[in-house]
Amino acid sequence: MGRVTSRRRVVRVVDGTVTEPVDTLVAEEPLEIRVNGRALTITMRTPGDDFDLAAGFLVSEGVVQRGEHVAGIRYCAGATDDGVNTYNVVDVVLAAGVPAPDPSLERNFYTTSSCGLCGKASLDAVRTTAAWSVAQDPLRVEPDLIAELPDRLRAAQRVFDRTGGLHAAGLFSAAGELLCLREDVGRHNAVDKVVGWALRSGRVPLRGTVLLVSGRASFELVQKAVMAGVPALAAVSAPSSLAVDLAEDNGLTLVGFLRGASMNVYTGAHRLGLADRAPAAPARS
Amino acid sequence: MGRVTSRRRVVRVVDGTVTEPVDTLVAEEPLEIRVNGRALTITMRTPGDDFDLAAGFLVSEGVVQRGEHVAGIRYCAGATDDGVNTYNVVDVVLAAGVPAPDPSLERNFYTTSSCGLCGKASLDAVRTTAAWSVAQDPLRVEPDLIAELPDRLRAAQRVFDRTGGLHAAGLFSAAGELLCLREDVGRHNAVDKVVGWALRSGRVPLRGTVLLVSGRASFELVQKAVMAGVPALAAVSAPSSLAVDLAEDNGLTLVGFLRGASMNVYTGAHRLGLADRAPAAPARS
Repeated sequence: MGRVTSRRRVVRVVDGTVTEPVDTLVAEEPLEIRVNGRALTITMRTPGDDFDLAAGFLVSEGVVQRGEHVAGIRYCAGATDDGVNTYNVVDVVLAAGVPAPDPSLERNFYTTSSCGLCGKASLDAVRTTAAWSVAQDPLRVEPDLIAELPDRLRAAQRVFDRTGGLHAAGLFSAAGELLCLREDVGRHNAVDKVVGWALRSGRVPLRGTVLLVSGRASFELVQKAVMAGVPALAAVSAPSSLAVDLAEDNGLTLVGFLRGASMNVYTGAHRLGLADRAPAAPARS
Repeated sequence: MGRVTSRRRVVRVVDGTVTEPVDTLVAEEPLEIRVNGRALTITMRTPGDDFDLAAGFLVSEGVVQRGEHVAGIRYCAGATDDGVNTYNVVDVVLAAGVPAPDPSLERNFYTTSSCGLCGKASLDAVRTTAAWSVAQDPLRVEPDLIAELPDRLRAAQRVFDRTGGLHAAGLFSAAGELLCLREDVGRHNAVDKVVGWALRSGRVPLRGTVLLVSGRASFELVQKAVMAGVPALAAVSAPSSLAVDLAEDNGLTLVGFLRGASMNVYTGAHRLGLADRAPAAPARS
């Protein structure tokens, strides 16, 4: 797709020397996701795999859990003033009997009626919304294999090297086979695109898989893994405290700072053949 | 604040050798932003500078433009079941006569009533919402000074080196003086905290300043700069195509890939004493 990148002339300064090369930029466009014709959210994303993005977003939000919950996805037929379809609005039609989300709440995971909003409430919300339990997933994977995944992801990336502006998410089998790679200007979108691909392929829950993300592991990325039934999430960079809490709460294996042959295993180390660390209480120091 | 980081024991694997060191993690907690008592949004953020975050978010959304538009900000007095105030809900009371935003729209920048949603509509929305024009800002700054800003930002960062999990945003004067630094697990939050600090200090519009962000320059970060009246945005990593379009549309200077003595100037190169490149049309190739 031509819209994934665009090229522009820039003024480049290197040690005081000025040139005007052509730079390749990653495209960013708004995408409105509708459910049964009603607007649910707008996200800024890199065009491409939009149906996967919409489907994966609905998995993350707990609206759908299996491929058969989606009756159809289409681009809205509308267009700009000059008659061009922007392909920036998709409508997801849910199967009969699947309740539509309430678009009046920005995030229906959270109870906003009290002032008790806290990390623990966020954990509770995911636990009560998740349709799958990843805690009992028998996945086992050697640390040496985990260490190879970033190189396998980068080898498969098509856009990143040209723009430097994309986040990547890759789904791997327990044997280290790359099942799906998606890139996006938004880190959450890259994961949603992978999850949506899986949903539409009839692979959710994603038992026995490892999800690798090119950046950090936030609460929301762990949430997306749990909602899709992924038992192991690996990140090239740091996790947040709440991401670790959520992973522990759900029995997810969480690996961070995955660089070369080194990694930090925050939760679920047994899946890597390592003894799990001491209980959940924060270390005293 | 103790809640900015937490410490946990992790299983660390380096070339097959397993240790169990204590790792410092960046804290992440939900923050609900209310306006006049009504919930507007929830963001996952690093606790601290929450009033700045709330105020800056409202600047970015076009709800307030000057410090006097805010009558007060407070933490809601609610608490969890066990009686602890979570400090995760803030209420912004607007000054008399300032219209409250409509919380039924997730992002009131966008027209969601038609299928014509596109990048151009996003640009138009910012142009019609922005209270300030940055195009005429007479800021001039040497490339050599711009090149020094990342080191100045890193030297002032307090949390990043310990967790590796934070995004930083720094506001600099035209002379390169660091006026405000904020860090957050969310890149948008770091910028909102800087803008909110400025609003509450009576400094908005932020004429004659340079905003530096530690990551990429997305559409939304350029939008936040424009809404706050910042004439120059510099990013350590890549901008998106729509970010460049928005910067050009508003006369903002946009620098990307700012590393050592090298940088790409995408728009507004005249502020760096460089000839602006050829017109806006994408380069042919």
